[in-house]
Amino acid sequence: MPQFAPLQNDTFLRALLRQPTEYTPVWLMRQAGRYLPEYRATRARAGSFLGLAKNPDYATEVTLQPIDRYPLDASILFSDILTVPDAMGLGLYFEDGEGPKFERTVRTEDDVARLHVPDMASLDYVFKAVTQIRTALDGRVPLIGFSGSPWTLACYMVEGGGSREFHTVKKMLYARPDLMHRILQVNADAVAQYLDAQIDAGAQAVMIFDSWGGALADGAYQAFSLAYMQKVLAQLQRNEGAIIRNGVRIPAIVFTKGGGLWLDEMADIGADALGLDWTVNLGRARALVGDRVALQGNLDPAILFAAPEQVAAEVEKALASYGTPSAGHGHVFNLGHGISQFTPPESVTAMVEAVHAFSRRQRAA
Amino acid sequence: MPQFAPLQNDTFLRALLRQPTEYTPVWLMRQAGRYLPEYRATRARAGSFLGLAKNPDYATEVTLQPIDRYPLDASILFSDILTVPDAMGLGLYFEDGEGPKFERTVRTEDDVARLHVPDMASLDYVFKAVTQIRTALDGRVPLIGFSGSPWTLACYMVEGGGSREFHTVKKMLYARPDLMHRILQVNADAVAQYLDAQIDAGAQAVMIFDSWGGALADGAYQAFSLAYMQKVLAQLQRNEGAIIRNGVRIPAIVFTKGGGLWLDEMADIGADALGLDWTVNLGRARALVGDRVALQGNLDPAILFAAPEQVAAEVEKALASYGTPSAGHGHVFNLGHGISQFTPPESVTAMVEAVHAFSRRQRAA
Repeated sequence: MPQFAPLQNDTFLRALLRQPTEYTPVWLMRQAGRYLPEYRATRARAGSFLGLAKNPDYATEVTLQPIDRYPLDASILFSDILTVPDAMGLGLYFEDGEGPKFERTVRTEDDVARLHVPDMASLDYVFKAVTQIRTALDGRVPLIGFSGSPWTLACYMVEGGGSREFHTVKKMLYARPDLMHRILQVNADAVAQYLDAQIDAGAQAVMIFDSWGGALADGAYQAFSLAYMQKVLAQLQRNEGAIIRNGVRIPAIVFTKGGGLWLDEMADIGADALGLDWTVNLGRARALVGDRVALQGNLDPAILFAAPEQVAAEVEKALASYGTPSAGHGHVFNLGHGISQFTPPESVTAMVEAVHAFSRRQRAA
Repeated sequence: MPQFAPLQNDTFLRALLRQPTEYTPVWLMRQAGRYLPEYRATRARAGSFLGLAKNPDYATEVTLQPIDRYPLDASILFSDILTVPDAMGLGLYFEDGEGPKFERTVRTEDDVARLHVPDMASLDYVFKAVTQIRTALDGRVPLIGFSGSPWTLACYMVEGGGSREFHTVKKMLYARPDLMHRILQVNADAVAQYLDAQIDAGAQAVMIFDSWGGALADGAYQAFSLAYMQKVLAQLQRNEGAIIRNGVRIPAIVFTKGGGLWLDEMADIGADALGLDWTVNLGRARALVGDRVALQGNLDPAILFAAPEQVAAEVEKALASYGTPSAGHGHVFNLGHGISQFTPPESVTAMVEAVHAFSRRQRAA
């Protein structure tokens, strides 16, 4: 394992582990992104999104941009949630102005039979980026590694891209649950190896993005998404139950967009924290999960289109809804979804300042 | 008020009013639609969707098609959720293969100031269709009237069409809540008049479709969607609290897609029943709302892509999850969203048969 500078700000990690913090730490999903002019400049030099994401130098550059601009409490690896199926040979690509697509889909018995856990060496560009970013961060804030969830990867693998209704993948789920379970098992094994390798490369926390779990029916969610995230977490290299490297705990966050109805079950799959989208009431969620997990979220990214004072007021509402953290509870502030490319950068300034200031006042009161 | 034949099957109405029924009644959102070849034939003769929806003869023809084909327990007016803003002069139109759009949007102070409740005479084609459909039904099953919710109408009015992220309308909500409240108040007044006129024309139940309430943050949902549905319900013509015509109760159903986290609050706004999407566990929802409201839902429409025996098995699971209806509880079976145009019509046969057969067995057990 590479050696890195000591961590100067562990507020984020402590909040995830439900330990006391002086204020509520904050970061933003997709914080290195198109709303930042400096990102757009690097992206233009890289030529394409994948050219950027697959080049550790560029990935390092853009990962640090929001850290340089704002007093954020965590950084997140710049990458894509679909690197794993790309490494399976499905051919990830992006068309201008559209979401991710795959050249090859996984739909037939033969497609499924051919599927296997990719050699992690083919994802070396990711692990190189992790080590390089962690080195460049020089201990300022922790670095989060991540992956798409087994179900979310399967959605793209079967549909061949994004979808509104997920008819193809859901048809397979209901008509051929055997095929779907086989895909998910391969995905879970691959995601576990992938996250473990990110941790070995220097990731200080990991997050599983279950972007499309919320499209599933109650019952199907538990069987086809939640169960496989649990398998991922169970397979991560652990010591006495905890994910630890060099004596330091590596917290794991699970985020199912649209999963607010299943928080009670999500709290028991072995994650340290749950991400929440903006439909969830923070106070109610805290009461529901108790001291089982920390919470992360959950401002509507659209709030960042309002004036700075309105942003601050909404931050205050959210923090008040969560309440003052107490023993065994933890809260990491974030948006409820990735930040929009149309966000004025000064809104993020207002948000981050408001989180830090109000949460310090809360604790002082 | 026109005179109509006596109702032969009131199972649907009794379930909504939480009265005992011999079996669980069933209908499907968007049951008159493109998955039916007879619908596609009428649609081709009408030339366009709006040509069909605005012509009472065609609307009657397609409304009755699923009733003739399946033993459904309710029919629903064939119309669009956006007739009201169209009557406000915004110019509803459809482009091939795309969702509804408006020629004019409502975004500026001037736009909002100009907005007013439309003369109901401009919606006469809807009320004519209601009367004509009810006459043609000849008492076989009840007829449901409907409207989009004030918030859902506002989404289309401000965005000018469908949206993935609702940035424009949410920006207005957070930056200019005064403008948003004014739009919603006009919409609520208009929807109340519109539903009252449908009831006067012969609708035997009404449903408010809040298709986009689930896009709102907790807090914003209550203030900008739920509160205005409550205003609509409160303004409907009532006798001693109940909506009654000719001595008969007219139940009102409210459906917020993605609103599963807010059912407790939704149960108190004066609706008789709540629609549920497929993310909601029927048994938990029943326990939560108690005897305040009946429930309607909630199969994932994607289940209808599986084989008939798989459809039947999923129906059975859903009915078992709800449990046997008891005094003060009511359940109307439905999908959790509109039926897909790609659904094999024989899947609907399997679903309706399974609902009727299993729910009779449940009651006999």
